Amino acid sequence: MLISFGYDDKNMSCVRIIDQEMQGIGGQKLDMPSLCSADLWKTSERWDLMGKELLRLKDRHGADYCLAPTHEEAVTTLVAHQTTLSYRQLPLLLYQVITRKFRDEPKPKFGLLRGREFYMKDMYSFDSSEEAAFETYESVCAAYARLFTRLGLRCVQVQADTGNIGGKLSHEFQLPADIGEDRLLVCGSCSFSANVETLASDRTECPQCKTGTLVESKGIEVGHTFYLGKKYSDVFNATFSNAQNKPCVAEMGCYGLGVTRILAAAIEVMSTEDAIRWPGLIAPYQVCVLPPKKGSKVNEASILAEELVHTLGETLPRLRGEVVLDDRTQMTIGKRLKDASRLGYPYVVVVGQAAVEETSRYEVICQQTGETMFLSKDGLLDLLGRVETV
Amino acid sequence: MLISFGYDDKNMSCVRIIDQEMQGIGGQKLDMPSLCSADLWKTSERWDLMGKELLRLKDRHGADYCLAPTHEEAVTTLVAHQTTLSYRQLPLLLYQVITRKFRDEPKPKFGLLRGREFYMKDMYSFDSSEEAAFETYESVCAAYARLFTRLGLRCVQVQADTGNIGGKLSHEFQLPADIGEDRLLVCGSCSFSANVETLASDRTECPQCKTGTLVESKGIEVGHTFYLGKKYSDVFNATFSNAQNKPCVAEMGCYGLGVTRILAAAIEVMSTEDAIRWPGLIAPYQVCVLPPKKGSKVNEASILAEELVHTLGETLPRLRGEVVLDDRTQMTIGKRLKDASRLGYPYVVVVGQAAVEETSRYEVICQQTGETMFLSKDGLLDLLGRVETV
Repeated sequence: MLISFGYDDKNMSCVRIIDQEMQGIGGQKLDMPSLCSADLWKTSERWDLMGKELLRLKDRHGADYCLAPTHEEAVTTLVAHQTTLSYRQLPLLLYQVITRKFRDEPKPKFGLLRGREFYMKDMYSFDSSEEAAFETYESVCAAYARLFTRLGLRCVQVQADTGNIGGKLSHEFQLPADIGEDRLLVCGSCSFSANVETLASDRTECPQCKTGTLVESKGIEVGHTFYLGKKYSDVFNATFSNAQNKPCVAEMGCYGLGVTRILAAAIEVMSTEDAIRWPGLIAPYQVCVLPPKKGSKVNEASILAEELVHTLGETLPRLRGEVVLDDRTQMTIGKRLKDASRLGYPYVVVVGQAAVEETSRYEVICQQTGETMFLSKDGLLDLLGRVETV
Repeated sequence: MLISFGYDDKNMSCVRIIDQEMQGIGGQKLDMPSLCSADLWKTSERWDLMGKELLRLKDRHGADYCLAPTHEEAVTTLVAHQTTLSYRQLPLLLYQVITRKFRDEPKPKFGLLRGREFYMKDMYSFDSSEEAAFETYESVCAAYARLFTRLGLRCVQVQADTGNIGGKLSHEFQLPADIGEDRLLVCGSCSFSANVETLASDRTECPQCKTGTLVESKGIEVGHTFYLGKKYSDVFNATFSNAQNKPCVAEMGCYGLGVTRILAAAIEVMSTEDAIRWPGLIAPYQVCVLPPKKGSKVNEASILAEELVHTLGETLPRLRGEVVLDDRTQMTIGKRLKDASRLGYPYVVVVGQAAVEETSRYEVICQQTGETMFLSKDGLLDLLGRVETV
């Protein structure tokens, strides 16, 4: 029975692709608590600095806690407790991907784009030197760029402010979009781009090439990287033993990706007025098969539709779990097609009149291009066999 | 580099196997917020009933929220808003599996066994009649039983109290264990078993067969099912249209599995004094390969170890992501073996002296039985090819 609530499954594809990219650069996954003791946040002084953005509560004994909006305090303490950490084990890249973050936004809006509860992939790096830390920083930025390329989303990496996270160097990953809340300045002549916040907003000359003109556009922030230096590792005493077996304070970086926000932003930049379009890799299902309405003249087509779903599962194992049969056959094909374009399956296959004719043909709608084709079963299998999945 | 923090990956295997069982009975996955508006909880009257167990907070505007320990209020409201729900779409089984739950326990203890923040799989069912709701209830209980059988854990289904969830019928799924906090009474003659809370605790005669004697044992509660009737659907007006197109209030059930608790309880009941033992399906990795210490006489063995990991990936694709090479070759084999037994990989393969001899042999330790074998490479591939994965 086709009823679709929530966004969990789409989210999970997004989680898998992020896992692949983070583990590709040596990231190790872990889980930290959402409910964090105030002590850690007082030690870093962010208990006061964060102000109203931090959601605070007391437990039954009156002890102070907050709902973590980010985990620098927790992860640095965790690493500080690894008393035998050696320089040979660095860089250490630790990340979370399905942990919900909490931020008491003054103005939650645009659904998943700015909520008070959201999924963020947060990664923290520990290095033995500033040079090594910069290398790690670059490898994470490269992994982020690869991720957006794989999703087919144009993303701009811009210089950014370090805000309350602190540190020395920072970049944002922005999806250009009119609905975006960030103002970017992009040079027309060189690779320079920055968030307006980091420059005088009336500046028009490029500070890098000195010749190009800065053009303003809007963007949705989907990622943020920070080189932190020893800001947190000093406070929490996160050290490793160097080659001379002496304790040294680690160099840190932190890196965020807005998991739920990527979903919403991708839909925002790709969809049309009438139809949702997803990046193929994170679409809820790749293929939706539509049998005819119950009682229609071409009732044999409903058997062909079920056979098709079965054949897809047998011959294209990569599509397992990616094919949905919309068996709400009390509804017309037209009504279900409308639902299909609202849900954004990349491929919709209508099994109707043309399928039961002698030269059997399946109607295939590629929702990402708007194109419609009539294909034989072999032609259809050939087309769907080329669909990329995570 | 082998460093293992947290339990996320083990948790994810547990998530996959739960997904399989829940989707096998028609369960659909969704995500609901952890931060819940007090209004919903005041409507159900649990805002007062839950007392100190409910973690409460205020947002920047002074509005009341709680951290959800369970989601009857949220899911029933969600279903109530589906204004076109038809009896043909029932039963509707909605579940969450990676949502953290929060409960301000008076005495958090035993690590993951009783924490204030934990993963719980929660499912909610909506049916058109009491009869259909009982059928759904039975199908969920059967899925729970299958799950524990697949994990190789002995689980007892006992009659239980309905507590603050309410409703008419309830069962607990208990893993018998001395460390357990629940007291169970099990009949020696028939299938009857119950939590002491539901009976007079000094009762010794079985209330079902009237002849058997009740024997007390201890258990760890890992699952709980409730038939709720219309308790929540009445309050939130969760209705469907019947065959006569008239609105009717849905019959509900709710069902919980302690995801993090299952991990901890399984280790508790399966491990020995010196070694952790996991149910095979949710072990962190199935196989750990140990090359010799750096600078050892049998240095060629380290090449064989890397080749073995490669061969496993090529010939046994089901083991992809399930094989770890412990390349901390600055440590002795003995030290790494000790770590391996602390981590509980079901199979540990030592590639040492015996591997470089003319009749090459790999030392395989089956940590679940404690057995050690010396196998040829083919023999090893044959053994590992039979390992079950989720």
